[in-house]
Order: sequence, then C-alpha cells, then structure tokens
Amino acid sequence: MTNAHPFDEAMHLEPLGDGRYRGSTSAQYANMVGPFGGAIAALMLQAPSLAPDRIGEPTALTVNFCGPIADGTFDVSATAVRTNRSNQHWTMTLVQDDQVAVSASAVFATRRPTWSHTEARYPDAAPSDSVERATNAFRPPWTERYDMRFVKGVLPSLGEETQRQETTSWVWLADDPPRPLDYASLAAICDAFFPRIFLARPTWTPIGTVSLTIYFHADLPMLAAQAARPVLGIAWASHFGNGMFDEHVEVWSDDRSLLASAHQIVYFKA
Amino acid sequence: MTNAHPFDEAMHLEPLGDGRYRGSTSAQYANMVGPFGGAIAALMLQAPSLAPDRIGEPTALTVNFCGPIADGTFDVSATAVRTNRSNQHWTMTLVQDDQVAVSASAVFATRRPTWSHTEARYPDAAPSDSVERATNAFRPPWTERYDMRFVKGVLPSLGEETQRQETTSWVWLADDPPRPLDYASLAAICDAFFPRIFLARPTWTPIGTVSLTIYFHADLPMLAAQAARPVLGIAWASHFGNGMFDEHVEVWSDDRSLLASAHQIVYFKA
Repeated sequence: MTNAHPFDEAMHLEPLGDGRYRGSTSAQYANMVGPFGGAIAALMLQAPSLAPDRIGEPTALTVNFCGPIADGTFDVSATAVRTNRSNQHWTMTLVQDDQVAVSASAVFATRRPTWSHTEARYPDAAPSDSVERATNAFRPPWTERYDMRFVKGVLPSLGEETQRQETTSWVWLADDPPRPLDYASLAAICDAFFPRIFLARPTWTPIGTVSLTIYFHADLPMLAAQAARPVLGIAWASHFGNGMFDEHVEVWSDDRSLLASAHQIVYFKA
Repeated sequence: MTNAHPFDEAMHLEPLGDGRYRGSTSAQYANMVGPFGGAIAALMLQAPSLAPDRIGEPTALTVNFCGPIADGTFDVSATAVRTNRSNQHWTMTLVQDDQVAVSASAVFATRRPTWSHTEARYPDAAPSDSVERATNAFRPPWTERYDMRFVKGVLPSLGEETQRQETTSWVWLADDPPRPLDYASLAAICDAFFPRIFLARPTWTPIGTVSLTIYFHADLPMLAAQAARPVLGIAWASHFGNGMFDEHVEVWSDDRSLLASAHQIVYFKA
C-alpha cells in the first residue's frame, strides 16, 4: 500500500489527543498467536516518544504483558507522571476490548558525555557476513523481518532425542528490509531471541513473556553510527522453575559498543 | 516504642481504603539523603501484597524512582490493572507533597512445581561464618540494618590513588537483627549493594537509582527453608556512560538455590 518500512507501519500511532493513540497489530510482525512482543514493546516506547513535551531519549523501559492481544486495533496511552529538569518518567497502557493488555513504564533522560567504561565483554564473534543467514521456514511471520545469523546457540529442532545445551546464543541481527537503527527498533531487537527454554529443554513448550525491561546505553550519535548494519545480540538464561524463567540480552554495535541490555521473565507451561 | 523488627516497622502501611495506604520513612533505613531505596522498593511490593483479593506471590517488580523522598509520610496506592486466572498485574505509586516520587509495577502469580534448571553458577564463596563482618563506620544508617560479609569486592576507600577494580562483589547478607526472609526483605536485599561505580571509579560520586527490576525465583517453601540465615549476593556492572550505569544482582540461598535476580540503572554525576 505504501512505501513505508514495515516496522514504521507497525509503529504507527494515530493521535487521539491527551496522550492517547490508536494503533494496530501488523501482519508482518505477527507471532504464532498475536503480535511479536518486541514490536509491542517498541510501540509502548513510541507513545511517549511522540509527546511534544518529551524530555530526552529513552533510558529504561519496562513492559508488562498482562493478557493476550488479538489481531486488530487497540488504544495506547502515555502519561508523564513526573518531569524533572533532565529526565521524565512515563507510564503507558495498551487497552483492547476495555481490558489492559499491556502496562509499561519508561524513563527518558537527556544524555551528556561523562566518564565511560564497559565491563561487559564484547563476544569474540565471527563477522556477520561470514555467517550464513538462518532459515525462517516454519517460523512465525515476524522472524522474516529480521536477518538473523547465529554465531552460536542456534535454535535446535525440538524433540525428545535432542540434547539439552547451554542457553547462550550469539546472533547477528538486522531489520529486513534494512532500516537505520533507532530506539524503537533497538527495543524490538531486545526481544528478538528465541526463548531460552528451547535450548535448555528442547521440547515444544508454550511460553509467553510476562515482563521485559530494557536499559538503553546507546545515545543518538551511536545509533546514527550503527545505521542499518547488523548488531550483535547475546542471550542467555539464569533459572527455570515453577513455570517461569528469566533471560538476559546484550545488544552490541559492530564497533564493540554496548547499545542496550535487557532482561525478561517468561512464563512456560511444562 | 514497640518490639516489632525495624524492617516490619519500615514496611508498615496504614490502610486508607481503595488500595490506598499511608506510609512513612524509617530512621533505621535512612540513607545519606532520604530513605534507602531497597526499603522503598519493598514497600511498593508490600502494597499489593496487602490486598485481600491478591492472587499468588511476587514474580516481577519494577520500581522507578521519579524524584526525591523527604523524611516523613507519603501515600502509596496499588491498583490491580489486570487479573487473570493464575496471575495479576499491579501498578503502584508513591505520592508525597502531591508529586509522584515513585511509580512501580508488579506481577504476582501462583507458583506450581515444574521442570527446573539453574544455569547461573553458584559462586564458590567461603561460608558466611568464616568471613568477618564489614564495618558500618561512616556509612548511612540503613547499612547497620544488615550484617554484611564481603567474600570479594569490598567497597574501596574513595580517592585519587585507589586503583580501579573489576566490579563484581560477593557478599553474605542478613537482616540485623535477624529476621526470617520474605519477599519484602528479599526485595530490599536486592538493592543493598554499594553502587558499582565506586569499584570501577573509586572517587566520590553522587549517584541515585533510576529504575530497579527484580525477578523473584524463590517460592514460599524456599523462603521458609532459608529463614534468617545469611543469603549470598553477587553484584556486577555492565556499562557506565552518559551519566548512567547498569548493575546486576543475584541472590542465592546458602543451599545454592537462586532466590532472585535483579537489575538496575543508576544515575551518576561525573
């Protein structure tokens, strides 16, 4: 219909006034059931980003997935609960059929150069163009919107005889079609890792993210420098039990800067 | 005044009806300026825990510190934004002088035994009773409410000539006086680590937690089994830059179960 990038179409919010917006699910970012959570997380960040009185850029985002989201439209609202000199705290909700499907919060802050130091270690990964692109066959539609190249920790075939493995994956990721990185697409990428339980326990298991938190380390010049080149994602898990597991993500630029770190807790049925 | 444990006094919330409560800062959990953030995080979790229609136990908690909290009283409100069959999503605020000082969200869920697996590694730490208790001299009042024993990564003296070190600490922690572990005290412990910047850059630096997220892995039997014995905390940082850093925490029982993992992003002035 338009020449817009599918991610920009998925991020479209129609203003309804007073920090309220109408959005809709995107067929291009569909999951097996409902939308890809990363696209929803990005949309929750998009709402405060559109506010004319918004201060600074995203520093932290927490998205609580409260219930299923059906294909179709929904309302997103964003409220600045506190505005300080150099930062602003927001709460957001996504409502569909009169029920809160997502509640979220964000901190925006102006960035200024300071002493800096990265203690997390950049993974010694082969460059993206030396790794073959993963197949999207039999995977949900949203996976086609990413060029994924697994350096290690590829999703195993799920079956009784598959060996359990350590849950760390190293993956080069880029939007497909290519699109310059911004905070919204970085947020979505933070959720674009196959659930770690499929590595730790390679049996088909229904899962769903319950709560996702992202810390944005990248400033605008770092995002601009990265442009549309692939970023390197690392994902791993800490603990599985009582129907929940947590997983952790780091997203690195290809010049070894940490762009974001993210954490989520995921429900599993087993 | 009473024989209540100081932590229980700090957790006291006077019901005002409709999910609203009156609370107050505690001199025993005072920080250098304002209250110890861990006690405030625990109090934010306490509000939904008191609700008669609350489902299950805490799974995830995010606390956004929006502005300073002055010594004295404040109002806490807790709203169930979505109730499902086996879980419940809450949002909370702490208001003082008509301003939102804290916004928070929590997920509560009923736990049921499932397949379980811990991938995070229990640190090979010397037992708590073989490590000397750290001094609280010249430290803020709240640190006296914890028996802290550093296995490694002790807070260095802050000065020009101190060497930068790797930011990982291993610390045995227990409430002082001893108190059986519960979700509220576990939440507070997740914030009871000295800011990692003091290890990475041992110079006095004003800091403040911006956003804290905790995932609770412990179920009620695990908390009961731990009782008042010290827990083992690990804290480390990923990245410092543009006036912010993130730090990560794992809290382990002394029988090697992961009780909680936590993450926070912290403002620093440098």
